[in-house]
Amino acid sequence: MKLATLKDSTRDGRLVVVSRDLTRCSEVGHIARTLQAALDDWQHVAPRLALIAEGIETGAQPTIRFHEHEAASPLPRAYQWADGSAYVNHVELVRRARNAEMPASFWVDPLMYQGGSDSFLSPRDPIAMAEEAYGIDMEGEVAVVVSDVAMGSSPEVARSAICLVMLVNDVSLRGLVPEELAKGFGFFQSKPASAFSPVAVTPDELGEAWDGGKLHLPLLVTLNGKAFGKANAGVDMTFDFGQLIAHAAKTRNLVSGTIIGSGTVSNKLDGGPGKPVEHGGDGYSCIAEMRIIETIETGSPKTPFLRFGDQVRIEMKDHAGHSVFGAIEQTVRRWGELKSP
Amino acid sequence: MKLATLKDSTRDGRLVVVSRDLTRCSEVGHIARTLQAALDDWQHVAPRLALIAEGIETGAQPTIRFHEHEAASPLPRAYQWADGSAYVNHVELVRRARNAEMPASFWVDPLMYQGGSDSFLSPRDPIAMAEEAYGIDMEGEVAVVVSDVAMGSSPEVARSAICLVMLVNDVSLRGLVPEELAKGFGFFQSKPASAFSPVAVTPDELGEAWDGGKLHLPLLVTLNGKAFGKANAGVDMTFDFGQLIAHAAKTRNLVSGTIIGSGTVSNKLDGGPGKPVEHGGDGYSCIAEMRIIETIETGSPKTPFLRFGDQVRIEMKDHAGHSVFGAIEQTVRRWGELKSP
Repeated sequence: MKLATLKDSTRDGRLVVVSRDLTRCSEVGHIARTLQAALDDWQHVAPRLALIAEGIETGAQPTIRFHEHEAASPLPRAYQWADGSAYVNHVELVRRARNAEMPASFWVDPLMYQGGSDSFLSPRDPIAMAEEAYGIDMEGEVAVVVSDVAMGSSPEVARSAICLVMLVNDVSLRGLVPEELAKGFGFFQSKPASAFSPVAVTPDELGEAWDGGKLHLPLLVTLNGKAFGKANAGVDMTFDFGQLIAHAAKTRNLVSGTIIGSGTVSNKLDGGPGKPVEHGGDGYSCIAEMRIIETIETGSPKTPFLRFGDQVRIEMKDHAGHSVFGAIEQTVRRWGELKSP
Repeated sequence: MKLATLKDSTRDGRLVVVSRDLTRCSEVGHIARTLQAALDDWQHVAPRLALIAEGIETGAQPTIRFHEHEAASPLPRAYQWADGSAYVNHVELVRRARNAEMPASFWVDPLMYQGGSDSFLSPRDPIAMAEEAYGIDMEGEVAVVVSDVAMGSSPEVARSAICLVMLVNDVSLRGLVPEELAKGFGFFQSKPASAFSPVAVTPDELGEAWDGGKLHLPLLVTLNGKAFGKANAGVDMTFDFGQLIAHAAKTRNLVSGTIIGSGTVSNKLDGGPGKPVEHGGDGYSCIAEMRIIETIETGSPKTPFLRFGDQVRIEMKDHAGHSVFGAIEQTVRRWGELKSP
């Protein structure tokens, strides 16, 4: 089934079940008012929501039109957002650009940071920032929402806790990263609010594209309407979601509604760093990686980071060409030109 | 006023207003069912809760007994927990123990990490951990809960957003810290679930001890019943809570209910690193600092990190000797010996 949260006057919006083709939806306030409320009691609530989803497809369930731009992030605020870096290829490239060597342990021990989860952007919200000089970048990723996971759970157990899959734009401020990481406490100011896809879907909805721990579909990233990346999220993912969740749960319980991210999707090409889309490659899911390739090839980066007015779109299509999660589509704006985003 | 959350069958417990002397409380489900619900609409809810608090003190309000061990952390789960390191003295000492130099910028640019906020321990819950070898340590701190803070707010504006003050045991796994920080993404596995004081109090309740940005009272830390620390939280705090909140809000909005921590309370002595309580000093709020002093003085650490069975107590008393927030009192246990903590 597919779930979304419609914006309303509350902080958590209201939960709806969305039709497979993303055109219609049904309100389900009588079952669970919000997605977090559904996740708090997922075992009992999910089967009831699944019946609604079935009714939507057969026509038995009354529906209203679903518009992606009326959706908030499926969890407009969450109790936890932990983002891995499972495409180690990406990590290696980013480090190379900082002239920092990558330890060999990164291939066996997942990298993960604790992200801010208190106020996500809606999928069509602007990315409002005070300065272009912060080096605003998108990061196209896949993320999963888990039910309760006990401390010390194995990757196998962790995989069975995956309730929902969605896409995320993990906005990053590249200009603030080096100084912040040098302080040793990880990202904070360099990771502003993220935005998630309009729709979150249960794994069974993904068919053969979901293997239990990875999603085997290309992540379509466009910048100002031009294809920028189409890397396959199932390729070169060194750690699957089960491993990432187990990593997060090593020394603590994870509460239902925890979101775990894959890190920027990134594909190698013949063992090398991939090629831009315009040169026939699968491109990149963030500008930083493009700049690194340019630096490697020509000695300096050519593609600027995002500027006010630039538009990013992140989407994923099934084999029939239909959008699976709806699209994240965000324009970069100067903070203060708009009221609260 | 003083607020607490009583454990019940729900994930968020139920909000009560507690008497100044921590002996009685009133249920306020008709005003706000949970503390987060109160914080979601703080401007309207707080005055109504304050009337209840007044009624409790005058005897006009019906009350029941309040027992600290029935309390969860005031926010059993929160949308954000960001912990500063405002006692730069502590940071300098911890670094010295790791043979890592502290950059001079640490005196002007606050250090802060994003903590996990999805499932806090209750103030009397055991600290359950798989291995003593993780180097289990307490960190006694002060924390504030803020209402909504807009991106880019000044420290002055940030100070006015402080709704509640409480204590926290920011449990740390010292054995996991060096390897985790070396990976560059900050703490994750080395910061398991924290526990907060049974009661959160509004700043006005603190009288002259609260100066708008710092809390001027000694933080009493005992280990197995013996005084371990009594450092004054208002002394040597390089950044006040206004500065810490503004730091957190530089590139994003903070949602109401965000918790900001002070970092381990630590006092210098005559410009030096302080003295253990048993040598007439104010002692320390974590074992790591004690071990550093021992290393400086004798060449090696003597005090072990926490072992299974050890008990930590963190409390703060007003000038009349009354407990302000109630006590955090936790025993370290092996994970699995108890069911879910």
